[in-house]
Amino acid sequence: MAWDIEQTKSRLLDAAGQEFAMFGFAGARIDRISVGAGVNRERIYTYFGNKAGLFEAVLLRQVAQGLDDVPLIGEGTDAVVRFAGDYFDSSVASPMLARLTAWEGLERTEPVGASRRTERAAVKAASIEHAVPGLSHQAAQDLLLTIVSLCHGWTAGRNVGFTTTGDPDDNDRRRKHILAVVRAAIGATEE
Amino acid sequence: MAWDIEQTKSRLLDAAGQEFAMFGFAGARIDRISVGAGVNRERIYTYFGNKAGLFEAVLLRQVAQGLDDVPLIGEGTDAVVRFAGDYFDSSVASPMLARLTAWEGLERTEPVGASRRTERAAVKAASIEHAVPGLSHQAAQDLLLTIVSLCHGWTAGRNVGFTTTGDPDDNDRRRKHILAVVRAAIGATEE
Repeated sequence: MAWDIEQTKSRLLDAAGQEFAMFGFAGARIDRISVGAGVNRERIYTYFGNKAGLFEAVLLRQVAQGLDDVPLIGEGTDAVVRFAGDYFDSSVASPMLARLTAWEGLERTEPVGASRRTERAAVKAASIEHAVPGLSHQAAQDLLLTIVSLCHGWTAGRNVGFTTTGDPDDNDRRRKHILAVVRAAIGATEE
Repeated sequence: MAWDIEQTKSRLLDAAGQEFAMFGFAGARIDRISVGAGVNRERIYTYFGNKAGLFEAVLLRQVAQGLDDVPLIGEGTDAVVRFAGDYFDSSVASPMLARLTAWEGLERTEPVGASRRTERAAVKAASIEHAVPGLSHQAAQDLLLTIVSLCHGWTAGRNVGFTTTGDPDDNDRRRKHILAVVRAAIGATEE
């Protein structure tokens, strides 16, 4: 029975992720999520309270996946550059987190689930700091935000990629540039 | 008479810019724009055709202002870094362009007014290339997109700034980091 509930919740979060990533918070429709998941809409309210609760659950799951599924392994500048490349690849493979946070940035004044997301980001910033001990805690946070901004900007902002570089599908070119920027930034901000 | 029309159009573009930046394309209401501008809604259709035409006019005006009002003056790396700082300041002072392009990236599959926007971006990329002759044309485009992504990401994505650095209002800290990144990136991508 508990297993069935977890399965149902997971199906709802998948369908809701697609819906929110496509239409944003205001534009998302609970009915479509219900149909997409094959789950009665009353169950959505039972499990997540309301649309805002569902959005928060979706975003927290994506942040957890986006950061945890892309570990920073090893030490030194190379390890951080490799993480940036993996994060870029993961953003290209699934722009869901990039789109969800972009919608949230536009539609809401405060981030949902802020404390848990701040924790996740702090863990990742600490791993950057650990990999390159010459970076201050603040510099590691700044660098993490730069990596995330550049990767998300590319996948959630194809329009700007198009008008600036001419080809929003040339992922190899963008990846190479971002990695060069990250490598150079580490060298410049080490103390 | 022509002057009156230009004045009316300008008031409409101001009001529409506020409305689209706040609510996006789908969420914007022509009625609110009409009230905000103090202009009968029929005139909106006469001047701009439809909501999509109005959005395109607003975005083209903002792109023109955003890029043209922030000239790249002088030569060398310092000139490009100064431009990045000016673009950051302009994005912080008015996040309208950052928000409009972010909405567009989420809501639409193709950029509106693409050819004119591509032209504007090409002019700016050429001025970067001219300032730092060691950069290839492609490297200058890549760098321009990085500057725009970092500045827009900060002002249109305060949620990510909040959860990553803890303070989305610390513009000085972010500005300093972005400028260090841009300077380092130029050094790394010169041929």
